[in-house]
Amino acid sequence: MAKTLGFIGLGTMGAPMAGHLLAAGHTVHMYTIEGVPADLKAKGKVAANAAEVAKNADIIFIMVPDTPHVDAVLFGENGVSGSLGKGKIVVDMSSISPIETKKFAEKVEKLGARYLDAPVSGGEVGAKAASLTIMVGGHAEDFATVKPYFELMGKNITHVGGNGDGQTTKVANQIIVALNIEAVAEALLFASKAGADPAKVRQALMGGFASSRILEVHGERMIKRTFDPGFRIELHQKDLNLALQGAKSLGVALPNTATAQELFNACAANGGKAWDHSAMVRALELMANHKVAKD
Amino acid sequence: MAKTLGFIGLGTMGAPMAGHLLAAGHTVHMYTIEGVPADLKAKGKVAANAAEVAKNADIIFIMVPDTPHVDAVLFGENGVSGSLGKGKIVVDMSSISPIETKKFAEKVEKLGARYLDAPVSGGEVGAKAASLTIMVGGHAEDFATVKPYFELMGKNITHVGGNGDGQTTKVANQIIVALNIEAVAEALLFASKAGADPAKVRQALMGGFASSRILEVHGERMIKRTFDPGFRIELHQKDLNLALQGAKSLGVALPNTATAQELFNACAANGGKAWDHSAMVRALELMANHKVAKD
Repeated sequence: MAKTLGFIGLGTMGAPMAGHLLAAGHTVHMYTIEGVPADLKAKGKVAANAAEVAKNADIIFIMVPDTPHVDAVLFGENGVSGSLGKGKIVVDMSSISPIETKKFAEKVEKLGARYLDAPVSGGEVGAKAASLTIMVGGHAEDFATVKPYFELMGKNITHVGGNGDGQTTKVANQIIVALNIEAVAEALLFASKAGADPAKVRQALMGGFASSRILEVHGERMIKRTFDPGFRIELHQKDLNLALQGAKSLGVALPNTATAQELFNACAANGGKAWDHSAMVRALELMANHKVAKD
Repeated sequence: MAKTLGFIGLGTMGAPMAGHLLAAGHTVHMYTIEGVPADLKAKGKVAANAAEVAKNADIIFIMVPDTPHVDAVLFGENGVSGSLGKGKIVVDMSSISPIETKKFAEKVEKLGARYLDAPVSGGEVGAKAASLTIMVGGHAEDFATVKPYFELMGKNITHVGGNGDGQTTKVANQIIVALNIEAVAEALLFASKAGADPAKVRQALMGGFASSRILEVHGERMIKRTFDPGFRIELHQKDLNLALQGAKSLGVALPNTATAQELFNACAANGGKAWDHSAMVRALELMANHKVAKD
């Protein structure tokens, strides 16, 4: 039986995602602080607040910027928690703290409802193309219930484990992406400074053990100097903050993630918070007084 | 016209590489400090020293451990340089300093001969299977002359640029490999400590922006605890030393390469110099007092 859906947070990511649910013919109750975009308004139902969305919907999707926003949506004034009960599933697709997520899930379950954490990767392009990677934590039966709706928004959808594991996987993803960017940046800068052509070096390394999606895509960006986003440095800073704060509270040392964050900070300090994250190389270039390639 | 070949250095890598040249029917004059292995001796010609190899061969391949060994083979007593002249090509396939390589090439050219730096990746397995990646620096016409012989030893063969650029590419490769290992190690350790199943996290990340050959191969090693080499930590320490020394003299900062080297040092300090390089994760595990997976 088709469920009634809710969607809270209709920004750059949430709007196209909710659009896919509406396009498939589902009833979607929507709320967002900035006001529901006109094209969605025409097809869906606009709610006065998050509580009203949760009252009318069986499955409530949330897509907001950070941990405090999810907290407010769930437990703030006129929040989702006021309307929760048996049979309802909260699906948080925001990228937030895995540790807080476990607490949120526990509180939601105490109200009789269920919780999935389902952060995505793929950015605005993936949201629009319905090709997002979705990493899900929570009960298997809830994953099975929501999966048909995930399939309207994404392609590579994995049930990783219990609550929090989706967010943990997203953090792990962002650690690897940042550090693979840093790796390619160090290697290409070294090669360029040693007098080699970084484009030929990159070509020689593709297909071997150094090969990665980042060498392919972001390596080319560093050489061609295409630093328009893509994925903005300020967003990756937020994600690495989740990694470093999480590491501190879990008791893990992430030395290279810490350095990568500092390199992002150096970019931001030089006007680069809205550069694509591949521009992390610019922080190393500043230190070396040399560039991988001409701007 | 087929050239007469020479091969100096018949260790773990050199022996199978020279074997492929012999198997193709070429005449190979050989010299190695430890004495030419019996199976090669039966097919090729054994020389008394490096100078004799160079006297008899048009193309002289060198495969020895490090920069000082290449220096000794070329310019030491009874070295190659004593027999060099017009028409001869020295092909150094060792992994050594790009900066010293440029000096070696200059000195060889002053003697009327030519020089290619052609380090490989793929290790013992690749040497035996004739599937090495070969990264070449030097004149294009010399690359063209030697290419048919490279093709007997390797598969992915790239002429990167002038002398030194082959070695520079190899260093860049080793930087990326070390830092991608470190990236996967931080991510899987974080995930495991946060309570997620690292095998499922790895699975969820494959195919996305975090995907890499290292996540595939070395990520699996970390989870399955298969730390028998593979590629030994002590060899990767040598390569990162080339990167860090090179960076210092070129004027580049490689912060994460420096940290990766320290993590290798921590492994070595705990008895791990002969572990596979994926065991770098053990240094992070020591700091976290937690393991990605059970040994």
